[in-house]
Amino acid sequence: MRTNEERAQLRHSAAHLLAHAVVELFPRTQLTIGPATPDGFFYDFLPEQNFKEEDLPLIAQRMSEIVARNLPITHREISKTEARNLYKDNPFKLELIDAIPGDTVGLAEQGNFYDLCKGGHVEHTGLLTHFKLLHISGSYWRADRNNQPLQRITGVVFFTAQELAEYEKRIEEAQLYDHRRLGKQLDLFSFHEEGVGFPFFHAKGKKILNILTSHLRSLLEKDNYQEISTPIMLSDELWKTSGHYAHYKKNMYFCDIDDKSYAIRPMNCPGSILVYKSRPRSYRELPLKLAEFGLVHRHELSGVLHGLFRVRSFTIDDGHIYCTVEQLETEVVKLIGLITKVLKRFSFTDLYIGLSTRPENSMGSDALWEKAIHALRDGLEKTGTPYHVQEGEGAFYGPKIEFVIQDSMGRQWQCGTIQVDFFLPENFDLNYVASTGMKERPVMVHRAIYGSFERFLAILLEHFKGNLPFWLSPVQARILTITDEQKPYAQAILSALKEHNISVELDESRDQISAQIKAAQLEKIPWMLVIGKKEVETNTITLRHRDGKQEFGLSVEEIIKRALALNAD
Amino acid sequence: MRTNEERAQLRHSAAHLLAHAVVELFPRTQLTIGPATPDGFFYDFLPEQNFKEEDLPLIAQRMSEIVARNLPITHREISKTEARNLYKDNPFKLELIDAIPGDTVGLAEQGNFYDLCKGGHVEHTGLLTHFKLLHISGSYWRADRNNQPLQRITGVVFFTAQELAEYEKRIEEAQLYDHRRLGKQLDLFSFHEEGVGFPFFHAKGKKILNILTSHLRSLLEKDNYQEISTPIMLSDELWKTSGHYAHYKKNMYFCDIDDKSYAIRPMNCPGSILVYKSRPRSYRELPLKLAEFGLVHRHELSGVLHGLFRVRSFTIDDGHIYCTVEQLETEVVKLIGLITKVLKRFSFTDLYIGLSTRPENSMGSDALWEKAIHALRDGLEKTGTPYHVQEGEGAFYGPKIEFVIQDSMGRQWQCGTIQVDFFLPENFDLNYVASTGMKERPVMVHRAIYGSFERFLAILLEHFKGNLPFWLSPVQARILTITDEQKPYAQAILSALKEHNISVELDESRDQISAQIKAAQLEKIPWMLVIGKKEVETNTITLRHRDGKQEFGLSVEEIIKRALALNAD
Repeated sequence: MRTNEERAQLRHSAAHLLAHAVVELFPRTQLTIGPATPDGFFYDFLPEQNFKEEDLPLIAQRMSEIVARNLPITHREISKTEARNLYKDNPFKLELIDAIPGDTVGLAEQGNFYDLCKGGHVEHTGLLTHFKLLHISGSYWRADRNNQPLQRITGVVFFTAQELAEYEKRIEEAQLYDHRRLGKQLDLFSFHEEGVGFPFFHAKGKKILNILTSHLRSLLEKDNYQEISTPIMLSDELWKTSGHYAHYKKNMYFCDIDDKSYAIRPMNCPGSILVYKSRPRSYRELPLKLAEFGLVHRHELSGVLHGLFRVRSFTIDDGHIYCTVEQLETEVVKLIGLITKVLKRFSFTDLYIGLSTRPENSMGSDALWEKAIHALRDGLEKTGTPYHVQEGEGAFYGPKIEFVIQDSMGRQWQCGTIQVDFFLPENFDLNYVASTGMKERPVMVHRAIYGSFERFLAILLEHFKGNLPFWLSPVQARILTITDEQKPYAQAILSALKEHNISVELDESRDQISAQIKAAQLEKIPWMLVIGKKEVETNTITLRHRDGKQEFGLSVEEIIKRALALNAD
Repeated sequence: MRTNEERAQLRHSAAHLLAHAVVELFPRTQLTIGPATPDGFFYDFLPEQNFKEEDLPLIAQRMSEIVARNLPITHREISKTEARNLYKDNPFKLELIDAIPGDTVGLAEQGNFYDLCKGGHVEHTGLLTHFKLLHISGSYWRADRNNQPLQRITGVVFFTAQELAEYEKRIEEAQLYDHRRLGKQLDLFSFHEEGVGFPFFHAKGKKILNILTSHLRSLLEKDNYQEISTPIMLSDELWKTSGHYAHYKKNMYFCDIDDKSYAIRPMNCPGSILVYKSRPRSYRELPLKLAEFGLVHRHELSGVLHGLFRVRSFTIDDGHIYCTVEQLETEVVKLIGLITKVLKRFSFTDLYIGLSTRPENSMGSDALWEKAIHALRDGLEKTGTPYHVQEGEGAFYGPKIEFVIQDSMGRQWQCGTIQVDFFLPENFDLNYVASTGMKERPVMVHRAIYGSFERFLAILLEHFKGNLPFWLSPVQARILTITDEQKPYAQAILSALKEHNISVELDESRDQISAQIKAAQLEKIPWMLVIGKKEVETNTITLRHRDGKQEFGLSVEEIIKRALALNAD
């Protein structure tokens, strides 16, 4: 597997390649920035005349020509004076130069094309064969709506033709099984202009969320978590103490109450901290594990909103563990067990686990960092889970373990994080009374498994292509009768299954059996329980599975037994 | 039972009595308003010098003197000119006179005291013997913080000495079992200055809320409700359509997103309506019942916030039924059944049920009102529930049935409403395709049972004096061992009970058994399972109830059987 760094270099080089082609074709275009992204790359341009979708093949063709030229890509440092001279007509680049610390800036060159760049490329343009341009969209200079509107061209690039082909196949499938399409087909959720980016969950969507919640809730109970519920709005002072006001303000919503400004929470941790602080805590209570299924709101530009993948309000399956640094390893072992267990239940077994260590400019003592990283590493080793060390990629306030799953279309999603935090306990002056009677500072661990329920639901829908497993299905079984004569027998089966909390319905439509089957298939209901004259006579049920496979002569007891087995954790 | 109107007249007359006493004692006091409230009465004064708590006995004494004078209370209409002359030095009364439509205003008189008044009094002051002044608090002219600060004196009044005595006893008990005190003692919830009026639920409080939720959820499922979940923030346009913006704006919180103003929802109905409108609806789907456990925010003056009784954020067990006016009766019958069933589960059996009929200035046709009231009345008759007609007390947009419970201290609480609504279906242009193929307008019914989970929890805590029934208890049983030798046996019992989802803990404190019992009693845990040497030898359990009653020699199977019976609906 290539490292994330290698992928980033390839993607970033492709962004240069794109800009190179654009300036050759449209020399009066002003360049701004062109970074690698987690999925590919983009470049934001200020063109003389707006690009149209039809321009993409032309640009792509020129990119291929530059690939064929196999130009070496070089990088050197130049003085800011020289850089300002090179970009005297480009206010964007001049602004970037001003913002870079020091007296020099980096410049990448390939042929007669050059671009400001801090470095990190492939060696020559010949390595960039396997790219694809995706689309043109609107953006703003520095992503701020008040600034100059720009045009963004987005693309992907891979090391091999096979990877690109796989990607294209995935895209095709992803369009077919787009969760927005499934959400409509299965009547799970909708979006409305009265609340841009805020999902509305219909009965079946909410049912799935409830199943996801109770599944996790029962596991957390066994693991001695305490579920709490805290306000979704808290005063600005609190967000100043937590640091969110300084660093996250532009993604937050505010409102005034009694001449005081309140922020709608973008995270649940400060609420958890206030509960921790609601009374003195003793070492006997540690590790104290507070869980909250917490609704948060975070601003996103309307252009990047994307179904349930990217919304402005979502619920996090949040957990905060307050413990001593000595207890960290045991907790990490438990967490790895819990997270892998939960993900396995959804058939996610192919996990990438990354351990991110201390970055530059971090806070907290050397000893604390060492102990914490040691604990995470030992936890990972103890559970025998293979993992990758992501050197220096931790947050400034603590190291982290992240879990990345791979879905049925080969896409990767981060679900599951264990984030150690030295910062908030310090800022909120958290303490507990140690066995010595002295006050000590606990360590805090933030952890989530699903991450966002909304995003996780979207991943599940696409991963399963709408065919949710039995236990997750909002309607697990539907009883279909050939004629109305079988209705009393069907009613008896309905009651028997409901007794056991199996989610079952009776088709009351009086449609032909073929139409009833078609409707149930469209709704992707796992089981059709077909009842005809013969079934009534023999006191049996025909079980027709979602995929068309049929089993005859089953007793109602057998059906219930199977359903309960599938519903059991 | 006295009617609400009779009580209101008594209370309002007592407010006059209070003002009469105040102007005799402090002639330079300016009078403003003095209404009856659901619990008693108050009068807002602008005194020359601020009243102190010590003035209350003096004022009360003078009130008793005026009672003894047994003055007739009369009422007449006077011209506005005359009224303005009477109140030429009182800007508050002048403002009130201006606001009254027509050329005359009402004046109530007793002895040489007079007050502006639209009428409705007892016949003479001699009927006001059984009053009690409660406290002095700050208020504002027209309840607006930007206006003149005033002083409010609050009191209660009853028809008989016995009623007053009962009230005083209730107050004493209520202080002893104040839910704010219990909330702290049982570690259920807390309030913090970072979110004034926003409750923070700790583990045990959240556990009770979860039990309340799942109890209702299972009943709703049986009754074919569809649970949905909609955003807590929606754009101002929507609230303009719903009428909340015009009539409820000052109780709402607002925030800006992308140059658009959004309101944090004070009610859940508009979200439900958008789900209704998310696709075309057919008559076959009616009655369509959408339920939401919806978090709302409503502004309250900080002075009136009161534990969980009066908060700024709370969750409503909301339900919206979309049906034809012909289906109304059947739905009302079901609703009465559901509401009384739920309330009975909490031992609330002494219900006052009020049917509020068409007020003046209502919207909707005569035929629609007649049919709807007919349906409500027939529903009540059919279920054989005694009820009181509250003539003209319905909302302008439809008639209503309300359920008032009486708690163990004799206090009355409205829990449960069935509100018919002709207005929102009109404003949001709701429709369904009738069997004729034509579009028809549905009727909408808003209904809640608990009302607010937070307030209902507070009522339950006080009603049960903290001794929640077994099924509602966050910790149902605690296992206590005489010595550590019994721990393995205790562990086996713990696992056996947990297997059956009984909420049980093991006391790990190593305290003396008497201290363990005391701790469990303080936490008001229903069952203590006491294990000593003898219990281990005989393979039994001693069950010690919260009230101290003990049962010896019970098997674990018997304990589980009893617990499951108590937990079953």
